Amino acid sequence: MTDSLTKALAETADAVAAYMEGAIARTGAASARLASAMRHAALGGGKRLRPFLVVESAALFGVPRASALPAAAALECVHCYSLVHDDLPAMDDDDLRRGLPTVHRAFDEATAILAGDALLTLAFDILAREEAHPDPAVRVALIAGLARAAGTEGMVGGQMLDLAAEGRFEEADRTRLGMAEIARLQAMKTGALLRYACEAGARLGGASQTERAALDTYALAIGRAFQIADDLLDVEGDAAAVGKAVGKDAEAGKATFVELLGVEGARAELARLVADAERALAVFGARATLLDQAARFIANRRN
Amino acid sequence: MTDSLTKALAETADAVAAYMEGAIARTGAASARLASAMRHAALGGGKRLRPFLVVESAALFGVPRASALPAAAALECVHCYSLVHDDLPAMDDDDLRRGLPTVHRAFDEATAILAGDALLTLAFDILAREEAHPDPAVRVALIAGLARAAGTEGMVGGQMLDLAAEGRFEEADRTRLGMAEIARLQAMKTGALLRYACEAGARLGGASQTERAALDTYALAIGRAFQIADDLLDVEGDAAAVGKAVGKDAEAGKATFVELLGVEGARAELARLVADAERALAVFGARATLLDQAARFIANRRN
Repeated sequence: MTDSLTKALAETADAVAAYMEGAIARTGAASARLASAMRHAALGGGKRLRPFLVVESAALFGVPRASALPAAAALECVHCYSLVHDDLPAMDDDDLRRGLPTVHRAFDEATAILAGDALLTLAFDILAREEAHPDPAVRVALIAGLARAAGTEGMVGGQMLDLAAEGRFEEADRTRLGMAEIARLQAMKTGALLRYACEAGARLGGASQTERAALDTYALAIGRAFQIADDLLDVEGDAAAVGKAVGKDAEAGKATFVELLGVEGARAELARLVADAERALAVFGARATLLDQAARFIANRRN
Repeated sequence: MTDSLTKALAETADAVAAYMEGAIARTGAASARLASAMRHAALGGGKRLRPFLVVESAALFGVPRASALPAAAALECVHCYSLVHDDLPAMDDDDLRRGLPTVHRAFDEATAILAGDALLTLAFDILAREEAHPDPAVRVALIAGLARAAGTEGMVGGQMLDLAAEGRFEEADRTRLGMAEIARLQAMKTGALLRYACEAGARLGGASQTERAALDTYALAIGRAFQIADDLLDVEGDAAAVGKAVGKDAEAGKATFVELLGVEGARAELARLVADAERALAVFGARATLLDQAARFIANRRN
């Protein structure tokens, strides 16, 4: 990772965490336990890649970081809620997340369910406020986009397909997935929020049709790269560096890109996707250096 | 219940169910199982009291039912999601809801968690669409209000306080509640969405400050009445008529209005609240007849 990318990621991570902490404090006075669980879920670290993409996409159009923070924080709230619910015993039953106990381990299941619900709700609360953007039409577009990316056509639908792919439901829902099905599942489960991150930045920046399309192409490429890198980590990573259990995909009998393409094939696909991402950014010239570096970082990440 | 109230409730219930069915169909193609679970949660009957209050509050200002339906359906999505999550084994662990198996019983826990998440997300999707209201500023106000009513300051926070009152968490969070604490808990857990229903109707209708305040006073009174009637049903009702288990409050050692006021005291409080509600509606004259009847219905309901 380049120094400038490290610095930009860290600065946005700090700023978005501070914003989220403020938003939780503002609304969370009723139940100290609920607020604690929300903080545990939202402030336990993480690269804050989605907020970074919002902030840097918006920065292409001269939007200062502070103006992009509400949208970035709202998106991160949705990401964090999804981790809390995915970790639940009835879902992936994970004990560790970013090296810390998951919310239902640190608190209890009921609190984890409600903390997730509260973070999802808080995301829309944040986007509806004037500080997210002065124009209500832009706020409503940000809300519509987030609801679609997070809902049945996006993240939640993808998680449902993922559980079905593990053979969790009756035979009728079980599928042995091919490349196209895995790509669709992952585009929904993890790709939709990454794509929304760039869309939100473009909206905040008043991007033209061409600029929006270019950012969307970039987002599609890095979304796919993100998942392939994740699959590689599950095969090759070690739990201490990754901060969560590894080898779970094979254990769950889950079809992955790496299983279908092989490790070398997956690495070749990653290189192709980084090239796609870079080509899409060409229209922005040198302004897009950080986004370009982010694509490489996503493809080569070790945790 | 008067014939005109019966008819209006049934008409709104049918219309809002049809709207919700359409909204689920529009977004739910990815996973048939998820869409089925959402339908089970959203279309399993119920009085649709909250949609009715949206529609009739808006009708005070001449807004036709069709124009109020998106906001009414969005609110009902939030109500239905909350029932799905509250029924989960880690929460109230209920097997029956409206006389049917709860979602996690009819499907499984993971599907129930995701169907709830999807319905909450769908609510904001619906409100962000132009058909909810042509003016984005009104849509964003509807979204802000719903997020606050459903979040940590409202429904989710109230559910958390309710679990704490049952002694579910460590001693530090356990409380033996007095009248003021129960009132606050219930105002959050069930009152906030009822209050939002009237607020949404007022917003759709472009109500004046005075009219909004009058509707809010009405909503506060019926919200309290709703909960006292619920507590009475838990003491006096039978499971077949109520459609869910009764006697659960006493079993859970939960403080209720009825425990504090006695059955007669609770009935007297109900009468006072109905009078409050009627007084608040006076400003609307005969236009408010259905809302007036609804207050009596809520106070005297048997299921």
